[in-house]
Amino acid sequence: MEYIDVPYTACFKETVAALDEPGCLLVTQGNEGYLNAMVIGWGTIGAIWNKAIFIVMVRPSRFTYQLLEEGSAFTVCVPAPDMRPIIDVCGSKSGRSHDKFRELNLSTVPSTQISVPGIAGSSVIYECQPVHFNDLQPEALTAQIQERFYPQGDFHRVYFGEILAVRALAGQAQQT
Amino acid sequence: MEYIDVPYTACFKETVAALDEPGCLLVTQGNEGYLNAMVIGWGTIGAIWNKAIFIVMVRPSRFTYQLLEEGSAFTVCVPAPDMRPIIDVCGSKSGRSHDKFRELNLSTVPSTQISVPGIAGSSVIYECQPVHFNDLQPEALTAQIQERFYPQGDFHRVYFGEILAVRALAGQAQQT
Repeated sequence: MEYIDVPYTACFKETVAALDEPGCLLVTQGNEGYLNAMVIGWGTIGAIWNKAIFIVMVRPSRFTYQLLEEGSAFTVCVPAPDMRPIIDVCGSKSGRSHDKFRELNLSTVPSTQISVPGIAGSSVIYECQPVHFNDLQPEALTAQIQERFYPQGDFHRVYFGEILAVRALAGQAQQT
Repeated sequence: MEYIDVPYTACFKETVAALDEPGCLLVTQGNEGYLNAMVIGWGTIGAIWNKAIFIVMVRPSRFTYQLLEEGSAFTVCVPAPDMRPIIDVCGSKSGRSHDKFRELNLSTVPSTQISVPGIAGSSVIYECQPVHFNDLQPEALTAQIQERFYPQGDFHRVYFGEILAVRALAGQAQQT
């Protein structure tokens, strides 16, 4: 399985489509090397501070939040169609009680710019180093969003990840 | 000049390229209808809360900040090549002391979903309704970003605009 470097804008449509359905995989790593993957459905990509930025949002209740707070970098992995079973497990179990990489026998792809790897077979892998975070301000959310997504609070922390590399599976790179 | 609706992902590469150089135009409107345009070089696009979202950042010192705080919606206009003189003026004068639309004799394009118009001739116009804002947290920025972009503070407010429509100049719509 060969990956090639692509511009950070190259796979935007594919990435946004995957966020919507079935979700992308956000991979983080604990200090002892323990890997975790959660499913994310939201994110934005663009340029801030003259850097390519991938914004992801994680609720404080998540195990991924703990790893990010401990200083983990992260990859965002766009799943290939055959990775649906991985999405199902990663979206329903917590890394606190399940070693998802071991249970799913996931192979990793070493990253080129960060220590956290991607998941082998992903069609696109974004390598991201957090450069900022801030928090949603409940009083500045519309009532509709509050009611629909935050009935119990647990407001997302917003992580701004500098995209240091984007790698696409050779032969599948969408050059649009 | 005819505009056609396009998917919000359709013009991402063109938009990010324009943010980088020469910048895009962020148009807001005061309560009495007074229009203003500032130049932005940063922004991200994607999906949050199951909505298409355009994130823009505005410093509290800006006149645009005042209009957004008063409740303005906004358009992000991707300039056509011949709009460079407009960028130069909008990037160097404040709407507090200059009626840029009058001084530049700018024509507007009525929006379809919000009251704030776009600037005629723009190659792409995003119509956005703010659904959230939060603020950069100085203590959670890297030292490099702090020193380079915030030597005098004035940390950006981050506006999350729901993209209600994206319109591209007919014949120029990039269908990639």
